[in-house]
Amino acid sequence: MAYKRTFGHIPGHPEGSTYSSRKEVQAAGLHAHEQAGISGTAKQGADAIVLNGGYPDDRDYGDEIIYTGHGGQDPNTKKQIKHQDLNDWGNAALVRSQLEGLPVRVIRGFNGDKSYSPASGYRYDGLYRVAAHWFADHEADPRFRVCQFHLIKIKDEAEAGILVDQPIETSLEEDLAQKQGPAPHKQTTVNKAVRNAEVVRRVKEWHQHRCQVCGIILQVDAGPYSQGAHIRPLGLKHGGPDMESNMLCLCPNDHVRFDNGALYITDDLKVVNALTGEVIGPLRTHPRHKIDLDHVRYHRSQLRSIPES
Amino acid sequence: MAYKRTFGHIPGHPEGSTYSSRKEVQAAGLHAHEQAGISGTAKQGADAIVLNGGYPDDRDYGDEIIYTGHGGQDPNTKKQIKHQDLNDWGNAALVRSQLEGLPVRVIRGFNGDKSYSPASGYRYDGLYRVAAHWFADHEADPRFRVCQFHLIKIKDEAEAGILVDQPIETSLEEDLAQKQGPAPHKQTTVNKAVRNAEVVRRVKEWHQHRCQVCGIILQVDAGPYSQGAHIRPLGLKHGGPDMESNMLCLCPNDHVRFDNGALYITDDLKVVNALTGEVIGPLRTHPRHKIDLDHVRYHRSQLRSIPES
Repeated sequence: MAYKRTFGHIPGHPEGSTYSSRKEVQAAGLHAHEQAGISGTAKQGADAIVLNGGYPDDRDYGDEIIYTGHGGQDPNTKKQIKHQDLNDWGNAALVRSQLEGLPVRVIRGFNGDKSYSPASGYRYDGLYRVAAHWFADHEADPRFRVCQFHLIKIKDEAEAGILVDQPIETSLEEDLAQKQGPAPHKQTTVNKAVRNAEVVRRVKEWHQHRCQVCGIILQVDAGPYSQGAHIRPLGLKHGGPDMESNMLCLCPNDHVRFDNGALYITDDLKVVNALTGEVIGPLRTHPRHKIDLDHVRYHRSQLRSIPES
Repeated sequence: MAYKRTFGHIPGHPEGSTYSSRKEVQAAGLHAHEQAGISGTAKQGADAIVLNGGYPDDRDYGDEIIYTGHGGQDPNTKKQIKHQDLNDWGNAALVRSQLEGLPVRVIRGFNGDKSYSPASGYRYDGLYRVAAHWFADHEADPRFRVCQFHLIKIKDEAEAGILVDQPIETSLEEDLAQKQGPAPHKQTTVNKAVRNAEVVRRVKEWHQHRCQVCGIILQVDAGPYSQGAHIRPLGLKHGGPDMESNMLCLCPNDHVRFDNGALYITDDLKVVNALTGEVIGPLRTHPRHKIDLDHVRYHRSQLRSIPES
């Protein structure tokens, strides 16, 4: 059965829904696998985890969880025989969810911490964000290192940047298929609980996380990191659209500068230091990334003094 | 009367408290002034605003507000006769609150939007964060520009990084007084609703917002910008202390790298690229900023492979 990967809530399966088996959890579209704890890919991120007493290193505090990653266990004895690392797709997927701010569904099973777990079967317990990851000595055998994740419940989805009123139905695979031929069987969609995750992902993919202003590709342990910056801001007053033509791929430093009046872009796509008037250089572009000059002009109109066009 | 500037809630004055006059609001410690809309300084940030129909450009949506800044009005006619800018202390204060993530108390007055304002007098309506600022044509006279602020209600103070269980009583003035002689009459304290705002402020002041890793001072329209990064993380599992000896002043790029396994610090305070092993250079230090090596070692222990010390 093809798994349709969705980030956010699954329609028809509200928080608190219960399931008698992993197979039912999988059939509901909540989690890709029948056994593995993590659902996801290194490239797309993790959409769900099952918390079911798999590691002594896990800690469950209800709204906060310390979750231990995949890998390094002997398949028969379940004992740790190797370090865990980010080459494991599951661990890499959870770090990618952290870096991209994607929500992770948490499903608790009957073997988990008694205070927060169902007495039998499995229960969907809502969306969490991955706040951090790190490596620690395995409690049962400190010769080996495990990868751990700090998950925090998302209580206010709007505050967390996760909107509920903006359905995005385009799939990443559809886009990739344009380059790679027929769409694969597996489908990825991002449901209305996540604001423009697909749009951001596409822009970052075009630029391979390279900052369009300074050209840096910021590297962290799980790979490259960048941010999607709206040119004309979303929401109140500005009403910028949630589209690729209104987004830049920026490093965090240039994102702060762009959003706070220190950089602007000219109609011929040069980047200017708004504080000195100095032209920094051309905006780095990608043939598929069409930037709408109306948004660029709108952004300029928000500066403390409007530059000559 | 000396005003004791406090960021966050004021004990004894919960959200919803009402006052018959600006004088009462001031006496409660909610706002520094009897007339000006903004309470704050360019250096410390804004701790409160009064929203009372002062500008046609204001918009009140309850949990979100578009607030228009100070300045440029003829004192007699109240007509706009000049542009607003960030040289105005009030506007600069609100931008500083945005950059530092400080909470702003919102007090609504009887002249404000009827849907959300009290019928008479003034009401304390809780804490908001400044999400953004920009400049726009003044609605009543588009020849002049006004500075505007997007405020969003803080619904989950822990989620917003504002803790309620960590009182911080040290005042900025006490610290400054060590260099400048006797403490001034005006006192600033940061109450328990704000996590370590004083600690962060002190570290940034020592380094003048210069990144301790790369040396950049990121400039935006309101001045320099940096982030306070905990060396040993706070909270679950790590339990790092909220102190200057556990904090670095970093640019956003190096903050992401430091928190995600791409940088570490040696016992002799060299910065190393954890992905390549290359020594980037010495950590920039300040004589008053003592860094606790235990925290530096703890941070290293969280990396995917523990470097030789």
